[in-house]
Amino acid sequence: MRTVLLAASLSTIAHAASAQTARPDPGPLTIARQGSFFVGGREVKSDTLSTVPAYAPSGTITVDQVYVRYQVPAGKLAVPITLVHGCCLTGKTWETTPDGRMGWDEYFVRHGHPTYVIDQAWRGRSAANPSAINAVRTGKAAPDQLPTVFSSGHEGAWAIFRFGKDYPQTMPGMRFPLAAQAEFWKQIVPDSINSLPTPNPTVPALSELAQKIGGTVLMSHSQSGIYPFQAAALSREGIAGIVAIEPGACPEPTADMTPYVGLPILVLWGDYVDEFPRWAPRLKNCRAFIDAANAAGAKAEMLVLPEVGIKGNTHMLMQDDNSLDIADILIDWIGKHVGTVK
Amino acid sequence: MRTVLLAASLSTIAHAASAQTARPDPGPLTIARQGSFFVGGREVKSDTLSTVPAYAPSGTITVDQVYVRYQVPAGKLAVPITLVHGCCLTGKTWETTPDGRMGWDEYFVRHGHPTYVIDQAWRGRSAANPSAINAVRTGKAAPDQLPTVFSSGHEGAWAIFRFGKDYPQTMPGMRFPLAAQAEFWKQIVPDSINSLPTPNPTVPALSELAQKIGGTVLMSHSQSGIYPFQAAALSREGIAGIVAIEPGACPEPTADMTPYVGLPILVLWGDYVDEFPRWAPRLKNCRAFIDAANAAGAKAEMLVLPEVGIKGNTHMLMQDDNSLDIADILIDWIGKHVGTVK
Repeated sequence: MRTVLLAASLSTIAHAASAQTARPDPGPLTIARQGSFFVGGREVKSDTLSTVPAYAPSGTITVDQVYVRYQVPAGKLAVPITLVHGCCLTGKTWETTPDGRMGWDEYFVRHGHPTYVIDQAWRGRSAANPSAINAVRTGKAAPDQLPTVFSSGHEGAWAIFRFGKDYPQTMPGMRFPLAAQAEFWKQIVPDSINSLPTPNPTVPALSELAQKIGGTVLMSHSQSGIYPFQAAALSREGIAGIVAIEPGACPEPTADMTPYVGLPILVLWGDYVDEFPRWAPRLKNCRAFIDAANAAGAKAEMLVLPEVGIKGNTHMLMQDDNSLDIADILIDWIGKHVGTVK
Repeated sequence: MRTVLLAASLSTIAHAASAQTARPDPGPLTIARQGSFFVGGREVKSDTLSTVPAYAPSGTITVDQVYVRYQVPAGKLAVPITLVHGCCLTGKTWETTPDGRMGWDEYFVRHGHPTYVIDQAWRGRSAANPSAINAVRTGKAAPDQLPTVFSSGHEGAWAIFRFGKDYPQTMPGMRFPLAAQAEFWKQIVPDSINSLPTPNPTVPALSELAQKIGGTVLMSHSQSGIYPFQAAALSREGIAGIVAIEPGACPEPTADMTPYVGLPILVLWGDYVDEFPRWAPRLKNCRAFIDAANAAGAKAEMLVLPEVGIKGNTHMLMQDDNSLDIADILIDWIGKHVGTVK
C-alpha cells in the first residue's frame, strides 16, 4: 500500500492516539529573528476607490499580494515550514487555539523550524479591492457585478468542519474544543475567493515565497490544498515538500505528474471523513492522485488518522485537543522525508 | 508651556535629531510567552451570508471582534503597550518597516514591554460582515445600501502621509524610506469605518483588552487617535496611559475631562504639519484639548518633533528612517510618566 504512512515512528503515533495529557509549560522561546513582509502584488488603477470626500475615488492601489509573518528560532535549524490557511479563515488558524493552547506556528518554531504564516490574497492583512463595490454603489455598474464574497455561518460551518452532522449535534468522541467555540467563530472572515482568477494569486505568491526562503515545506489546509501543487507546477524551486491537511482538492490523477517527481508529499486526514458527503470524495480522489503521482516518481503518502488508531479529529485538527500530538507526527515525517535544507 | 515635552531626556532627543546610524544586530530575543486572541464581538443572524452553493445564505456569524497578537518578553517587565493602527491599514503598521528594519512591535518587546498589536474591527484579521453586499447582489436591497468601503490610492495617500504635497514630489529632508514604497502600498487595505457605529466597536474592545491585560498604555495612530480617549471615557480600568501618534482627532476641549484626570497622555507629531491643511487644524485642536485636560487635572503633554530639533518625520513616523530613535523617546516618556504597572 502506498497510501498509508510509512515513516512516522510508531511511538509518535501511539502517543497521539492516547488521550492528550496536559503539556508542561514549555518555558521561554528564543528567536533569532522575526518579522513580516509581503510577496506578490500588482498595481491596479481605479476610478471607484472611494465614495467618501476625504479619500479620492481615482488612483492606484496594490492588490493580490500575500502577507507573511515569520519567526526563525535560535539554534540548530530544521527545514522551514510555510502555513497556508483554508476557507473563510486567515493565518490565525495556526496560532493560539480557541481554548488558549499553543498553535502550530509556535510549536514548529520550538522544534527548530523557521515558520512562515500567510494570509491568502484578498483576505486578512492581504488587501482586497473595493472598486467593484463602489462602482455599483455609484451606479457605474449593475449589482450583478458585485464581488462574490461569503461568510460561513456557525450552523453551516458545523458540518463543514465535521464537529457534527447537524448543528449543534456532535460526532462521538469529537476532539474540537467546543467549549471555546465562540472564540473560534471570531476567526471566520469574509472570503472573496470566487471573485479571484485561477490559479488564485496566492499560488504565484507562494512560489515567490518558497524561492525567497530557499527551501520550505508548503503546508496547506482545506481550500488551499491545491495551491502548493499548483505552485510546484509553476516552479519546483524552493519547494522542499508538501503537507496537505485535508485538502479541498488534490491534483487530478490524470494530470501531468512531472511537477511532483521526487517530491515528498503527505496528505493528512482526520476522523469521520467517510460519513460526510462533502469530504469522502475528496479523500478518495487524493488516494487516486497519490497512486498516480507515485507511479510517476513522486514520494507521496496518505495518513488517515483513524486508520492508525487516532480517533476523533475534525477538519480543524490543528486546533483539536490533540493538535500538538498531530504536529509531532508531522515534524517526524518532515524530518525523515524532507530532511534538512541548507 | 504645558504643551512641550517636559520629561524625555535631552540626550534621547539629541540622538533622535541626528541622522540615524545603522543599528547593530540586536541578537536573539527571548520570549516568555506569545500568541493571539480576540476581544469583543457579537453574534449577528443574516439571510445573505453567501451567494455560492457550498455555503448557506442563512446563519449566524460573529463580527465586531478585534484580533490581538501579543509577545511578552522574558526578564524584568515594563508597562505593557497596545498598538492601534490608523486608516486603511492593519497591525502590519507596527511590524517590520517597508525597507526591512525592526518594527516598534518587536522593539518595545526588546525593551521589556509586553506588546499587543491589534487589527481594528472589520479590518485585517477582524471580520467584516458581507451581508449588505449580498443583499444588494441578490436584489433584496438597493445599491445605496452597500457598505461605505474605501481604499486610499497611492497618489492621494502621498499627501495624507506627508511624503510630499503633490505626488510624487517629496518634502525636503523627508525621512520615509520611499525606495521601499512598493512594500508600503501593500499594507493598505479597504477601510469600512464609515459603515460602523460611533464609537467604533474597536473602542469597547480596547477597553476589554486593557482590563484583560490589567494595565497598558494605549498607543494610537491617526484615525484611531480618538479611540483610547473614548475607551477611557467608558472605563479607566486597565488604562495606564495614552500615547496618541498624530491623532486624527483629540477630544474636544469643551468635552468632559473627568475621564482623563491624573492620566499620563502624550500627543506626538512629526514634521511639516503646519504646511498641510488636513493636519494643521488637528494639531491645533489637540493643543487646546491638552490645555483643557491639564486644567482639569490630566497629565497631558504634546511633543512636536521639529520643535525639539527632530526634522523630516512624516505621518508614518513609526516607519521613517529614525523610527527606533522616536521609539526611544516614547520608551523614555513611558518609563518616566507611566512607570511600571503590576
